[in-house]
Amino acid sequence: MSDHNVQAIKWDGEKLSLLDQRLLPAQESWIEIADLDGAVAAIRDLVVRGAPAIGIVAAYAAVLGARGAGSDTRVWHAQLERLAQTRPTAVNLGWALARMRSAAGDSLDPDRLEAEARTIHDEDVAANRAMAELGSAVFESGTGVLTHCNTGSLATGGIGTALGVIVHGYRKGRITAVFADETRPWLQGSRLTAWECAREGIPCRVVVEAAVAGLMQSGQVDWVITGADRIAANGDVANKVGTRMLAILARHHGLGFMVVAPSSTLDPDCVTGADIPIEERDAGEIWRAAGVDTPPAGVDAWNPVFDITPAELVSVIVTEKGVIRPPFHDSLAALRAA
Amino acid sequence: MSDHNVQAIKWDGEKLSLLDQRLLPAQESWIEIADLDGAVAAIRDLVVRGAPAIGIVAAYAAVLGARGAGSDTRVWHAQLERLAQTRPTAVNLGWALARMRSAAGDSLDPDRLEAEARTIHDEDVAANRAMAELGSAVFESGTGVLTHCNTGSLATGGIGTALGVIVHGYRKGRITAVFADETRPWLQGSRLTAWECAREGIPCRVVVEAAVAGLMQSGQVDWVITGADRIAANGDVANKVGTRMLAILARHHGLGFMVVAPSSTLDPDCVTGADIPIEERDAGEIWRAAGVDTPPAGVDAWNPVFDITPAELVSVIVTEKGVIRPPFHDSLAALRAA
Repeated sequence: MSDHNVQAIKWDGEKLSLLDQRLLPAQESWIEIADLDGAVAAIRDLVVRGAPAIGIVAAYAAVLGARGAGSDTRVWHAQLERLAQTRPTAVNLGWALARMRSAAGDSLDPDRLEAEARTIHDEDVAANRAMAELGSAVFESGTGVLTHCNTGSLATGGIGTALGVIVHGYRKGRITAVFADETRPWLQGSRLTAWECAREGIPCRVVVEAAVAGLMQSGQVDWVITGADRIAANGDVANKVGTRMLAILARHHGLGFMVVAPSSTLDPDCVTGADIPIEERDAGEIWRAAGVDTPPAGVDAWNPVFDITPAELVSVIVTEKGVIRPPFHDSLAALRAA
Repeated sequence: MSDHNVQAIKWDGEKLSLLDQRLLPAQESWIEIADLDGAVAAIRDLVVRGAPAIGIVAAYAAVLGARGAGSDTRVWHAQLERLAQTRPTAVNLGWALARMRSAAGDSLDPDRLEAEARTIHDEDVAANRAMAELGSAVFESGTGVLTHCNTGSLATGGIGTALGVIVHGYRKGRITAVFADETRPWLQGSRLTAWECAREGIPCRVVVEAAVAGLMQSGQVDWVITGADRIAANGDVANKVGTRMLAILARHHGLGFMVVAPSSTLDPDCVTGADIPIEERDAGEIWRAAGVDTPPAGVDAWNPVFDITPAELVSVIVTEKGVIRPPFHDSLAALRAA
C-alpha cells in the first residue's frame, strides 16, 4: 500500500509518463516520453527534478535508448554519455547510469535493462520509506521544522527524502509545525512542496528565504531538514542553492540540521565539497520574476543552482542504511562498508 | 549640481509627483498627488517606499493636508495620525510628522509647513551626500560589496543611503564589484537597485537571496551594506526582511557589515530591537510569484517584511553626523548628544 498520494514518474513498460513540474501547481499536465531524446530534454528543462527522480528517469531512459539503439552498444553508450551531461551536480544520475551499464554488460538486452530500471525505482521507494522512519525517529514530539526546495514524491520514486521524513513525522505526531521556504528562483518550495503537503493533508506555511532568520529567531522551528544532490567523503553536502545559508543560520540559532538522502547520493570519489561541480543556469530564471526581459546595460545576474554545506554544520545524515552523526568521514566510511 | 541621475519625489509647490516604484523597471510612470488621501494610499500601496522617502512624502502630505483642512487643526492632526499608521516599522515617518507638528505649533500656516517640508527634503539630500562620503571612506580600494533591498535615489531624497555609499565609492575606485540580492517578495534589488545602478553607470550583478552564502564563500564580496528603517538605542537594526540573515552570514564568512542611515532613523525610545514593531503584509505578495491565486487548503504563508539584526553583528553605522563603531549603546548616545 502506498504511503503517499503523489506519484510523478510512471512507467507502463513502453513509455515513461512524467508530471510536468514546471506547470505545478496551476496545472497537472503529463508528458509522455518514448525515446531517449525526450528524456534528455525532460531532465534538462526541469520537467523532472530532484536527484533521486532524475536517477530513476535516467534508468528508464536507458531502456528506451537500448530499444532505439537496437544491438549497437556503441550508440547506446554514447546516448548514456549525453544523458549524464544534462545535470552535473546530482550524483544519482551518474550512479543510475553506471548501474544500467553494469546490468547491460557487453550485450544490450532491453528486458534485462528494464528489470534493472524497475529495480532502481523500487529500491528508491523502499529507501524513501526506510529514511522516513529512521529520520522521523530522531525528533521529539512537538518538533517544528523548516524545509528547503522540494524533496517529496515529486523528487523521488516514493514518499520522498527530507519531505518523506516530514510527512511520516507529522503522521506520527513528532512533527507539529512545517515551514517551507519558497526556494527562488524556481520556487520549488511554494509551488511544489506546498502542493505536496496539501495533497498529504499536512498544514504548511511558506516563507521567503529572506524571512528564514526571523523565523528561526521566533522559536517556531527546531530543525532544518533538506535533501542532498551529492555527499562527499568528508560529509560536505551539495544541495539546492540556499542550503548552505540555512545550515549557517541553523547553527547560529541553535537548531539541528538534518540531511536526508539515499546512499546512492554518497560519492566517495569526492574527497570534499570542493570536488563537486556546481551547475549554473540561465540568468533569465532570475530576471523573469522581476519582469525584466533584457537587463539594462551593465547589469548581470549570477545563478548557481546548488551550493556546498560544510560537514561541520550538519547534525545528522539519514540514509536508508541508518542515521549517522559526526565525525562524518568515519561514519560515512562505515556506512559504505556496511 | 546633483550627484545622481534618478529623482523619484518631485514637489512643484502645489502637488507631489511620485515615480511609481511598483511598475519599475518595466515602466516609468508618475503619479500625481494633490491631497492627503492620495499620499496615504501611495505609502500604503508601495508607490513610494524606503524609510527616508516615506518621511519626505509624509512631510509634503502634511502640507497638502493643511491646505485641505483650512485652519482646522483638529482635522489636520487626525489626518497626520492616519498617515502615521500606514507603515509601522520605519521611524522616519513618525519623525517627519513630529517635525511638521512642531513647525505648525498651535496654528496651521501652510506656507510655514511647506517651508518645513522643503527643509526636510533638502536636509535628506545633504545627509545622503555626507553619508556617501563618510561611508565610502571606510573601504580600501578594490572592495567588493553586496547590498540588499533598494536604498538609492528611489528610497530617499538624494543619492541614497547604502546605495549612495556604493555609487560614491564606485566613482572613487574604492568599490569595484557590486552585487545586489533580488529581495523577495517585492524584488527591490532586481527591479530597483539594478535599474538605479544602470542609470548611474555602475555594473551590478543580481543574485537570489539563497545564493548569498555561496557568493560570500566565493570571496567576491568583502562588505555587506544595507540601510535601516529604525535603529534602537543599543544599536539593534530594523530593516528589510533578510538583513538579519545577511548579517549572520557576513559574520560567518568574516565580512564587514555596514548600516547606512540618517540620524532621523535613530530611535532612542526603543531600548532594543525587541521594542520595534515588525510590519507583516499580505501573503498574496508571496503567492503571486508562484502562480498561486488561492493556496490549497492547509497551506498558508508568513510575510513579515522587516527583521531585527542584533547590534553585535554590525561592524559600523554610518550617519550624516559621522561613522560610529561598537559599543553602539555608547557611540549612539554620543552621536545624539553631538
